[in-house]
Amino acid sequence: MNKNRIEAFSDGVIAIIITIMVLELKVPHGDTLRALLPLFPIFLSYVLSFVYLGIYWNNHHHMIHTTSRVTGPILWANLHLLFWLSLVPFATGWMGENHFASAPTAIYGVVLLMAAIAYFILQHVIIKSQKPDSLLKKAIGNDWKGKASPLLYILAILLAFRWHWFSLGIYTLVALIWLVPDRRIERILLNKR
Amino acid sequence: MNKNRIEAFSDGVIAIIITIMVLELKVPHGDTLRALLPLFPIFLSYVLSFVYLGIYWNNHHHMIHTTSRVTGPILWANLHLLFWLSLVPFATGWMGENHFASAPTAIYGVVLLMAAIAYFILQHVIIKSQKPDSLLKKAIGNDWKGKASPLLYILAILLAFRWHWFSLGIYTLVALIWLVPDRRIERILLNKR
Amino acid sequence: MNKNRIEAFSDGVIAIIITIMVLELKVPHGDTLRALLPLFPIFLSYVLSFVYLGIYWNNHHHMIHTTSRVTGPILWANLHLLFWLSLVPFATGWMGENHFASAPTAIYGVVLLMAAIAYFILQHVIIKSQKPDSLLKKAIGNDWKGKASPLLYILAILLAFRWHWFSLGIYTLVALIWLVPDRRIERILLNKR
Amino acid sequence: MNKNRIEAFSDGVIAIIITIMVLELKVPHGDTLRALLPLFPIFLSYVLSFVYLGIYWNNHHHMIHTTSRVTGPILWANLHLLFWLSLVPFATGWMGENHFASAPTAIYGVVLLMAAIAYFILQHVIIKSQKPDSLLKKAIGNDWKGKASPLLYILAILLAFRWHWFSLGIYTLVALIWLVPDRRIERILLNKR
Repeated sequence: MNKNRIEAFSDGVIAIIITIMVLELKVPHGDTLRALLPLFPIFLSYVLSFVYLGIYWNNHHHMIHTTSRVTGPILWANLHLLFWLSLVPFATGWMGENHFASAPTAIYGVVLLMAAIAYFILQHVIIKSQKPDSLLKKAIGNDWKGKASPLLYILAILLAFRWHWFSLGIYTLVALIWLVPDRRIERILLNKR
Repeated sequence: MNKNRIEAFSDGVIAIIITIMVLELKVPHGDTLRALLPLFPIFLSYVLSFVYLGIYWNNHHHMIHTTSRVTGPILWANLHLLFWLSLVPFATGWMGENHFASAPTAIYGVVLLMAAIAYFILQHVIIKSQKPDSLLKKAIGNDWKGKASPLLYILAILLAFRWHWFSLGIYTLVALIWLVPDRRIERILLNKR
Repeated sequence: MNKNRIEAFSDGVIAIIITIMVLELKVPHGDTLRALLPLFPIFLSYVLSFVYLGIYWNNHHHMIHTTSRVTGPILWANLHLLFWLSLVPFATGWMGENHFASAPTAIYGVVLLMAAIAYFILQHVIIKSQKPDSLLKKAIGNDWKGKASPLLYILAILLAFRWHWFSLGIYTLVALIWLVPDRRIERILLNKR
Repeated sequence: MNKNRIEAFSDGVIAIIITIMVLELKVPHGDTLRALLPLFPIFLSYVLSFVYLGIYWNNHHHMIHTTSRVTGPILWANLHLLFWLSLVPFATGWMGENHFASAPTAIYGVVLLMAAIAYFILQHVIIKSQKPDSLLKKAIGNDWKGKASPLLYILAILLAFRWHWFSLGIYTLVALIWLVPDRRIERILLNKR
């Protein structure tokens, strides 16, 4: 029961975050197709963040699935993750409105980095709360994606001040890495049944 | 369980989208009934989009109902549909504020078209995930509504630049076609029991 | 199952409506207590609408509780109710910002009236969908509250253009009438068990 | 069933409140890191309120858990609590934008105080609705946190007009007091099983 409520709350917050981002897409003043042009970079950054939040929702879903009981530390590690995710619309809007300028692109990476760290902490807290034969621990295996992503984000943040398009390429790359469905957890869960 | 969470998340996102559209109805500056007049086209476009989102929620509800297990591709096809639906408030606001001018009316049709395509893809992915005797496949039958709608949207988009009121008529017509409750799925589900 | 989803969706929409109203409470420019003064009428109208939405949520909860299956007409009658409720923040904001001027106060009554009519329709559709010994029909009895409220709203709308404070008094009175918990449905439900 | 719906509704409202606060973090106009500087106090006040809302969600979760049936008074005491929580984003935004000036800092305390009182009332109403051997009553014990918090808020409100940084220190202190997980309820619930 506990578990259902943490799922419902997280779903609610992520659903709101993903939808609030649309509010950054302000209705343009003109009524021509040309008036839409300045919105294009904002639209692109919105698509990227939509995919990121979709990935987080998807993986969060699988991760909580392996949990049987929700402890205090899990609740707070989860809220910590939601905190950083809730900053994604801000970072997305700033980056989009400034056409992927250096500082906003770097800050976008910082928010992604902090979310990745928060996700890592949540994963760790859940594994610790489980028996020695943690289902989640088996499921994530060596977790190369979880380890590579923060490093790639740090690289992108550093590069943003010189080659900010390169940073954007890294963000897209990391999204694609995760977009490939993480069948590891699914497989182990199926074996278990 | 999986299924419940995809339902809950989609419900959350659609509920937020439908409500966020109200934010486009900005409180007018005057305090007379006359001050409400400029809001009338925005109000009309809001009503149309409310009906569209209601139809999507209703049909989405029936479609997911036929699913027993949620796979990765279903999750992402669903997020893809939610993405296009989340652009409805933007298109609605732009069309309403510009009194149904050509370009905004065409873009409104583009968003509806993309949502219809996303719905079609989701339907296809669910049918593929089911046994050969797919319940959903039987339920939708020849799916003439699903096939006619995109064609009508394309017609409306093309006409928008000459007779934009005609386009609006088409959008209203498609909404009415779908508003007639889709008893096909309900009937088959009842027979099944 | 159907029933759970209509409950979840309605809860979501009402929760969003009730919270979005806060956005009308714009952060004032000054940093003194005096800067809060102009917000006072907005705050008052917010409290009134919060109570109204709380009453609708509460009664909606009891009404859906008596339903066992959700039909197409129930779904749409429910969406129709949510549509009018979603206009409450707009009407509240307009009334509050204009210090309860005549036209906004009348429009506030119109929105309340339409929501009351939509509630009445939803109630009627549910009763029709139930067996002759409809649980909900028994529960609402002569429904004097449901019948008196629209009349009072109409009175308030008409009076708004002469004595708008009187209209506000009527809105408050109707809220108080409903605030008294509607034990009728609760009683019948208890007897049933 | 009743209980699930009050949980779902409260979760929805708190999820929306916590996310709406982000909207106060307006995208800055410049595209340099320096442009972020003025947002720093707003960010800090956002973190504080995020933690407060997290604490309320967490404790609310445990409190409702001890309830078996939801009565009318519980519903309204719960809505009363949500009302005051819904004012947190407003108070947070005002305090942050004015760099923790006296009046906004005092008003922030007033909102926290009212929420604490509303929480106390809800707790009391639930205990009254339970048998003499109320599970919740046992669980909260002497409730020193619940009694100390309002006193500390009052102190902070009074001090805000002279030493507003001191008030902020008190708000942080109270958050820390509650952040320590309230194991009392968890322990009793475990014993019960």
